[in-house]
Amino acid sequence: MFTLGNFLTLSTFGESHGLAYGGIITNFPAGLEVDFEKVQYQLDRRKPGQSSIVTQRKESDTVVFQSGIFDGKTTGTPIGFIIKNENQKSRDYSHIADAYRPSHADFTYDQKFGLRDYRGGGKSSARETVNWVAAGALARQVLPADVEISAYVSSVGEIFCEKPYQDLDLSKTDESDVRCPDPATAEKMIAKIKEIKKEGNTIGGTIMCVIKNLPAGIGEPVFGKLQAELAKAMLNINAAKGFEYGSGFCGAKMTGKEHNDLFNSDFSTKTNLSGGIQGGISNGMDVYFRVAFKPVATLLRPQESVDRDGNMVTVEGKGRHDACVLPRAVPIVENLAAFVLADLYLINKLRRL
Amino acid sequence: MFTLGNFLTLSTFGESHGLAYGGIITNFPAGLEVDFEKVQYQLDRRKPGQSSIVTQRKESDTVVFQSGIFDGKTTGTPIGFIIKNENQKSRDYSHIADAYRPSHADFTYDQKFGLRDYRGGGKSSARETVNWVAAGALARQVLPADVEISAYVSSVGEIFCEKPYQDLDLSKTDESDVRCPDPATAEKMIAKIKEIKKEGNTIGGTIMCVIKNLPAGIGEPVFGKLQAELAKAMLNINAAKGFEYGSGFCGAKMTGKEHNDLFNSDFSTKTNLSGGIQGGISNGMDVYFRVAFKPVATLLRPQESVDRDGNMVTVEGKGRHDACVLPRAVPIVENLAAFVLADLYLINKLRRL
Amino acid sequence: MFTLGNFLTLSTFGESHGLAYGGIITNFPAGLEVDFEKVQYQLDRRKPGQSSIVTQRKESDTVVFQSGIFDGKTTGTPIGFIIKNENQKSRDYSHIADAYRPSHADFTYDQKFGLRDYRGGGKSSARETVNWVAAGALARQVLPADVEISAYVSSVGEIFCEKPYQDLDLSKTDESDVRCPDPATAEKMIAKIKEIKKEGNTIGGTIMCVIKNLPAGIGEPVFGKLQAELAKAMLNINAAKGFEYGSGFCGAKMTGKEHNDLFNSDFSTKTNLSGGIQGGISNGMDVYFRVAFKPVATLLRPQESVDRDGNMVTVEGKGRHDACVLPRAVPIVENLAAFVLADLYLINKLRRL
Amino acid sequence: MFTLGNFLTLSTFGESHGLAYGGIITNFPAGLEVDFEKVQYQLDRRKPGQSSIVTQRKESDTVVFQSGIFDGKTTGTPIGFIIKNENQKSRDYSHIADAYRPSHADFTYDQKFGLRDYRGGGKSSARETVNWVAAGALARQVLPADVEISAYVSSVGEIFCEKPYQDLDLSKTDESDVRCPDPATAEKMIAKIKEIKKEGNTIGGTIMCVIKNLPAGIGEPVFGKLQAELAKAMLNINAAKGFEYGSGFCGAKMTGKEHNDLFNSDFSTKTNLSGGIQGGISNGMDVYFRVAFKPVATLLRPQESVDRDGNMVTVEGKGRHDACVLPRAVPIVENLAAFVLADLYLINKLRRL
Repeated sequence: MFTLGNFLTLSTFGESHGLAYGGIITNFPAGLEVDFEKVQYQLDRRKPGQSSIVTQRKESDTVVFQSGIFDGKTTGTPIGFIIKNENQKSRDYSHIADAYRPSHADFTYDQKFGLRDYRGGGKSSARETVNWVAAGALARQVLPADVEISAYVSSVGEIFCEKPYQDLDLSKTDESDVRCPDPATAEKMIAKIKEIKKEGNTIGGTIMCVIKNLPAGIGEPVFGKLQAELAKAMLNINAAKGFEYGSGFCGAKMTGKEHNDLFNSDFSTKTNLSGGIQGGISNGMDVYFRVAFKPVATLLRPQESVDRDGNMVTVEGKGRHDACVLPRAVPIVENLAAFVLADLYLINKLRRL
Repeated sequence: MFTLGNFLTLSTFGESHGLAYGGIITNFPAGLEVDFEKVQYQLDRRKPGQSSIVTQRKESDTVVFQSGIFDGKTTGTPIGFIIKNENQKSRDYSHIADAYRPSHADFTYDQKFGLRDYRGGGKSSARETVNWVAAGALARQVLPADVEISAYVSSVGEIFCEKPYQDLDLSKTDESDVRCPDPATAEKMIAKIKEIKKEGNTIGGTIMCVIKNLPAGIGEPVFGKLQAELAKAMLNINAAKGFEYGSGFCGAKMTGKEHNDLFNSDFSTKTNLSGGIQGGISNGMDVYFRVAFKPVATLLRPQESVDRDGNMVTVEGKGRHDACVLPRAVPIVENLAAFVLADLYLINKLRRL
Repeated sequence: MFTLGNFLTLSTFGESHGLAYGGIITNFPAGLEVDFEKVQYQLDRRKPGQSSIVTQRKESDTVVFQSGIFDGKTTGTPIGFIIKNENQKSRDYSHIADAYRPSHADFTYDQKFGLRDYRGGGKSSARETVNWVAAGALARQVLPADVEISAYVSSVGEIFCEKPYQDLDLSKTDESDVRCPDPATAEKMIAKIKEIKKEGNTIGGTIMCVIKNLPAGIGEPVFGKLQAELAKAMLNINAAKGFEYGSGFCGAKMTGKEHNDLFNSDFSTKTNLSGGIQGGISNGMDVYFRVAFKPVATLLRPQESVDRDGNMVTVEGKGRHDACVLPRAVPIVENLAAFVLADLYLINKLRRL
Repeated sequence: MFTLGNFLTLSTFGESHGLAYGGIITNFPAGLEVDFEKVQYQLDRRKPGQSSIVTQRKESDTVVFQSGIFDGKTTGTPIGFIIKNENQKSRDYSHIADAYRPSHADFTYDQKFGLRDYRGGGKSSARETVNWVAAGALARQVLPADVEISAYVSSVGEIFCEKPYQDLDLSKTDESDVRCPDPATAEKMIAKIKEIKKEGNTIGGTIMCVIKNLPAGIGEPVFGKLQAELAKAMLNINAAKGFEYGSGFCGAKMTGKEHNDLFNSDFSTKTNLSGGIQGGISNGMDVYFRVAFKPVATLLRPQESVDRDGNMVTVEGKGRHDACVLPRAVPIVENLAAFVLADLYLINKLRRL
């Protein structure tokens, strides 16, 4: 319950100012020679302080595997891992202990639990995603080697990457600070983020994720459709507001004649408005989806708000915050997708006698 | 695994031309005086043949509860229910046994399972949703009586209901055949669907769902966020291509200053771009979301396609099919949402000592 | 939650005097040619009225599969099944509606749920096991063909079958009405049951179950040990009071030198006090376990008891009840074990890359 | 899947010579003022080196909670905890890397996973139970304060504590090194263990566990019976061979007239052969059960065995091992039972509207 994955599962713990984040991955198959560098590489992509347009906080985000791996190979038993918090100490949070920040989870946690860890957002902090990246980067190694999962920033505010993903070189995504593989668009996005940042404001955007070479057959008919599992994972990311795959919301404007993907004789399809999924199951074509992110709620400028007693107060974000989370969300989307796929990929092996 | 719900769960069975659909609801609390009419009412809203713009197939879709209810009250033990298939007999499906219809699940089922029940789509048939409506309509009775869940058709093709939901009388939704509560827009939608139908074509659209009076505190911090559970449920509906809540994809174009919902002193918010959810937990404001549906893949006109051996064939839908599923999807969205909410509502009762 | 099995799962519904029993089996692999006769055969072994020493109630206990099987083969989608209740009508239960029968679940259901279906025990009726036999008999067909699961009555009251199972011909179990494969012991058991029955009394006993040719590797290290999964299943059977495997409670009297099973060079072991399981995982030797059953609580003679208000009342079983459930419990134990094994067998296929 | 508990769940990780053991507890209610000393006290009861009759290994077994607790109170979010391994370094295990020790899990792990962590038994080490004690000791604090869970050693080899538990002062259990509350029996047990230990041999035994003041209503009708959940937990303990509750295997020798527990007018029962459970649900009387443990497989004397290639080898335990695990298993049984009860206790709160 409330794990990621159905058979291959991830349970996590950790809060912004606790001792550590961490998780347990169960049912990971034995015998995988773990590429630890690939795991740390993904964590490094997510960590703060990588470029001038993201937060300058410093955290090493080093994952230490505690179990389930012996002599470099997975043993088939639960894989525990820990990522220590390094900046969790001393700061004084008493000024926000009673204040509810607008569009944060302060109020809802108090309503739900009757109390909350107010230091840095506690459990509601997006730092939780560090667990998902670690687990996803490991799960990715279970998938066939040719499965490629490539996310990129497809819009920031009103600036869209208009080119279809087929016309982009997705291997170049990380070459721009904003992780948009189209250099001209990337430049505009970066300029926009810098402008917004100067104002102490923040901005939203979208991420496109493309999965190539996924075998046909992945996903389950009912209550386990591939798109539903992906949507569930993505909408657990902090700030995510929407998910669409294939033609998505545009497809809702179309007619069947326009939308149906006709087959070629090799069972590929001439178009791919389906987004590589039919009846909840992959068909061998590219799977692609888009996730919408709202602007970060923490502003580095004063906002009116209320405290626990309903008194009006002024809140103002301090220190180092992202003006736009999109660049750092790219590895989150990718590795979360990898975990979802690895889970369904393993399950699919049991679908035929 | 692959049930709907986490604590209150629904497992289902059934395929288009099997004997029956049905399901088992577990962990339903004891002592509820069941309103059977409300359950059947929701099933009747979903069933075919209700108006000139939906399929004219006749099915009574009568749910028969088999257990878990005694003297009109739930007993706290599993609730089994059955909805018999009435039209499942005799027709000859051999002509499509080997053909793969475009944008259907024929090919992916064969790839996954090595065989499939080709009669009427088998398990991939949208008739599965009859189970969800039955279970959801029952689960709805667990929620506080003032929780209102109202879905309506917000667009058909390019025709959008431009008014915000606050300006609509949602009690009038069922007064139009297309289930759009704005009469002028409804008229245009109906005209469009009739035109499309005449061509043997189909058309997509979107459904908006609004949940009023949901108490604060519903939804779980990680891997059980309210929006993620709703998205997962909605994207399991056949033909669903996207989900967004609150500001959704529009929110991704905004800045934090525009997007943050400032508090009133009674903890309501001045705006509600959050869609009633912060940190995955309801805040007491309206929860609202939108689901995109692609056009139905079955066209009543010939399409080129392939068979299992890769030979080109012509397929053509016969008989009675929906040109637009949106009107019938309205009760599906509502009752699916009801089940998700009832599950998280019960779980929330255990969140504090 | 509260299903049988972890990956291959069984959810069930039904109560003594409801319309039907039934269940849903999920994650059953596609492509199995179902042997329906084997399923019905196991149900027939469990059903009442088979011999003079069990209840003479008549129920046909015919299972009807509703879905998940097409053209005689499993499709990989959920398998729904129904077993109609035939004797559930009209009888007057008002005399026991308020009485609590000794050592029945009447009191505890009322305490838990605040109400109960008092007709024939409602959900607490052992008729629920009909579901388990149906599902188990199907699951058995997933196991390798040479896996043999043989249960028999190893004691009735003080009468024990003293021979070790290796000295018995387990194919002869069903030749005696009491299902003990040792004819001399069977005769004594039958005489004892007849005597007890004449008194309106009942008697307990034990069942031994032997699993031959189970491959090594079945069972999971932590919280999924083979013995734990078997124990859980067996202790869900009505009237079960204990479970032991291998040396069991006798092993607790021994020293390590006596108890350790030394290896042969082919990895078989010279003795098998381990009962074919080490560290929760099968080792290829026979798995065997014993289940203790208390005497049936329903006596065909008056007993003092209390009603809901604490008034003293006299209760007396009427009609047709088993004086000893052991013979009918043999197929329950076998098929329940089959389900547990099939679940762990499938899971084990995913344990190595 | 493969967690302890159904709603309140424990996932664990760790192996004998890994960096740490640890776990995640989910769905723990918010607002509990944690008594950390009670948790550490239970861990101290389990840890090695407490008396002359158990292993003299030194491990501090200090639990460090990583999350889910703030200002001494549970926050309702996942509770992560870590127990570092302190003795895991340096020793040379290459001599046993290829040997299969008799009645250990060496062979079965290799068969299942194709490899294993051979250092100190890896995942199959009983050190895993340190996680269960930590989690159980915390879960115990969720139960009503008057629920008492008291386990004690009821037999060692052939030496049985003949007195019924009602005649023992269970508060005195820890006063004897062997944790048997009957001083005369304890003395004999201790003498026996010392004798066995001198021989490099080991010995089995049984543990009785008594739960007082458990409210009526705990446990679920089907696939969640209280006895089944307890049995599953207990049979996951290393070396456990059997479980019985109430009359257990003795009850299988009795008649219904002898076995039925007649009611008093206050709904207590005159006898309690049921062991406080009817229909899988607690009835308010004492719940009691017994667990059988085989003798430890590691002998401090040479035994013949085989290696991975089937060659005969001699194995001999070295260092510090328990000659009898029973005393240290007492807190394991108690705290495991506490976790099972806390889970079902919380679930029971949702059973009525």
